[in-house]
Amino acid sequence: MSTGGTGELSHSEAGVATDAAASALAGLLGSVNATLSLRRGTGRPVLPIGYYANVLDLGGGRGLAISTDGVGTKALVAQMLGKYDTIGIDCVAMNANDIICVGAEPVAMTDYLGVEVADPGVFRDLGKGLLEGARRAGISIPGGEVAEIPEMIRGAFGGQGFDLVGTCVGLVPLDRILTGRNLSDGDVIIGLASSGIHSNGLTLARKVLLQTAGYGIADYVPELGRTLGEELLEPTIIYVSFAVEALNAGVSLKALAHITGDGLLNLNRMTAEVSFELEDWLEPPAVFQLIQEAGEVPVEEMYRVFNMGVGLIAVIGRGDTGAILELAHRHGHVAKVLGHVRDDAGRAVRLRPAGLQGQGSKFTKQ
Amino acid sequence: MSTGGTGELSHSEAGVATDAAASALAGLLGSVNATLSLRRGTGRPVLPIGYYANVLDLGGGRGLAISTDGVGTKALVAQMLGKYDTIGIDCVAMNANDIICVGAEPVAMTDYLGVEVADPGVFRDLGKGLLEGARRAGISIPGGEVAEIPEMIRGAFGGQGFDLVGTCVGLVPLDRILTGRNLSDGDVIIGLASSGIHSNGLTLARKVLLQTAGYGIADYVPELGRTLGEELLEPTIIYVSFAVEALNAGVSLKALAHITGDGLLNLNRMTAEVSFELEDWLEPPAVFQLIQEAGEVPVEEMYRVFNMGVGLIAVIGRGDTGAILELAHRHGHVAKVLGHVRDDAGRAVRLRPAGLQGQGSKFTKQ
Repeated sequence: MSTGGTGELSHSEAGVATDAAASALAGLLGSVNATLSLRRGTGRPVLPIGYYANVLDLGGGRGLAISTDGVGTKALVAQMLGKYDTIGIDCVAMNANDIICVGAEPVAMTDYLGVEVADPGVFRDLGKGLLEGARRAGISIPGGEVAEIPEMIRGAFGGQGFDLVGTCVGLVPLDRILTGRNLSDGDVIIGLASSGIHSNGLTLARKVLLQTAGYGIADYVPELGRTLGEELLEPTIIYVSFAVEALNAGVSLKALAHITGDGLLNLNRMTAEVSFELEDWLEPPAVFQLIQEAGEVPVEEMYRVFNMGVGLIAVIGRGDTGAILELAHRHGHVAKVLGHVRDDAGRAVRLRPAGLQGQGSKFTKQ
Repeated sequence: MSTGGTGELSHSEAGVATDAAASALAGLLGSVNATLSLRRGTGRPVLPIGYYANVLDLGGGRGLAISTDGVGTKALVAQMLGKYDTIGIDCVAMNANDIICVGAEPVAMTDYLGVEVADPGVFRDLGKGLLEGARRAGISIPGGEVAEIPEMIRGAFGGQGFDLVGTCVGLVPLDRILTGRNLSDGDVIIGLASSGIHSNGLTLARKVLLQTAGYGIADYVPELGRTLGEELLEPTIIYVSFAVEALNAGVSLKALAHITGDGLLNLNRMTAEVSFELEDWLEPPAVFQLIQEAGEVPVEEMYRVFNMGVGLIAVIGRGDTGAILELAHRHGHVAKVLGHVRDDAGRAVRLRPAGLQGQGSKFTKQ
């Protein structure tokens, strides 16, 4: 089973759903890459396209991190449930969690809301979620755009369609940008728990659970201890307060990886020529087992599409393990040591508990 | 005739299409406004929601301008024509032209592309337009997001739907932010010509020309000297090179206003308690007369929805009129003096050539 022709692509994504989509993305990226040299001096981008965020040189050793992401088809789940007051949290989370991965402190996010119909109740609730997300991330929403474009937006039911996208900016000293460039043998890989599906893989999850398995969105699912809709709409965890404190704590925080679509495989995009040995993992929430079994989804596909219980990975120098774990716990996160960086140049991600080896954009079963 | 329930709303728009939409927007803005105080110190927004862009305090007297805007239903015109290589220019224009209005130099824009199907030819051409737009604006596109979400996006024909949105950032010294706060009696209002419809009012234009008047998108229209589709898809002019030179020329440039939906009425949102007397206007391109006549659209509606031939307004101290006009001409723009600022506190926009007076979000016929 694969995600088929649907799913979220991303400039920062190595593996895309189909060959046509990969080819399309490559064509677009050709032009986007050509823009990188259009700006020199102040404002110039200092990273290549494809990491979690780019950083613009503001001069004086300061950098501006910038990243754009949307909630994707999680919007459809909100529509099916008629519950709109948390999806704004996901919008902030998807963006702010990317910004911290380059070592930046998020400061603001603009939002784009495209809708079929401007419904006062829905807008009020979308705003509530955005406000709550902004609170959790410690950012403002200084502006945005709302477009009522019924000819361009559709949804789960007529008139309910919306798309919600954010662009987040943050600040980082240029000499403290995180790209995993100084990873070395023995560095410790720490995982912070996700709250479930977060905002990636909803297309596959909906297909398997609602179509293949025939669940209704409002069905109570004993394995989940709540309704399917409540599980799928659970807001994405925002890791900003932990990350900002870790960045300023004087510990040897060497890399952060937001685990989204292809997230774990993004580990092997870090600058250093190393491999990642994961000898342990956090217990995946029950929803993932439900999807895997109902859809007969291969485990390598599960770990490519879903976060599988780990929403953020931090790589740190060995001596700071205790400090980072303590910090994560103090910020309310479940966290533990998952493994270590290994000094072999294969850029592999070995996930022992699942018997997987990842290279490039694919996991294979060992 | 009115735009009915469709059209582009905006955080920065005073007048929206319907009461329901206005009420919806107010509900969302309540939450968005509450985020402004969430960020203090570095990164705090220094402007209220609703001007062309906001500015974040970067510290050290520096500011980051940020603005989000999309191409709206101009995307449908591109689909009808099967011509995708210029709409990226509009995406850059809509954003970069907003950034200059707070006195900032645009440096980068991220893009969001939501599509029904990831088509390689379409993506390649969308990229071409973005690259050309970036060239004209002197910015990079350091990242972005592509989502293939057929359940959420639709278009003019099955499979062709896309939505294209940008978020642009720019740099401005905090003590040089333009908000029209120091306008005074006798300041000169200069208009720079648009290239036609730009990216606002396409919903009304399509309704009138394709439905009411029954034109085909490929029809040659003698009044336009080209096909209707070519006219409607004409790229939005990017005023960045002119504006950046004007901002740095040591002239008394006091305000810039990007004329989009409600654009001319945005003049009366400037900080200073003044009125705007427009005794002259640039000749509106023929497409506007075509729309006005075919749709029997009242003139007050025409000047509220469309730019009517003026894409950017600059307000300057009287002594610099010649210098600014020369600068505009040197950057290839048609430009002339339209009128003057008047020291009456009514915040009115009086447009003598059209017999209109604008106040709040409405024009009325005098």
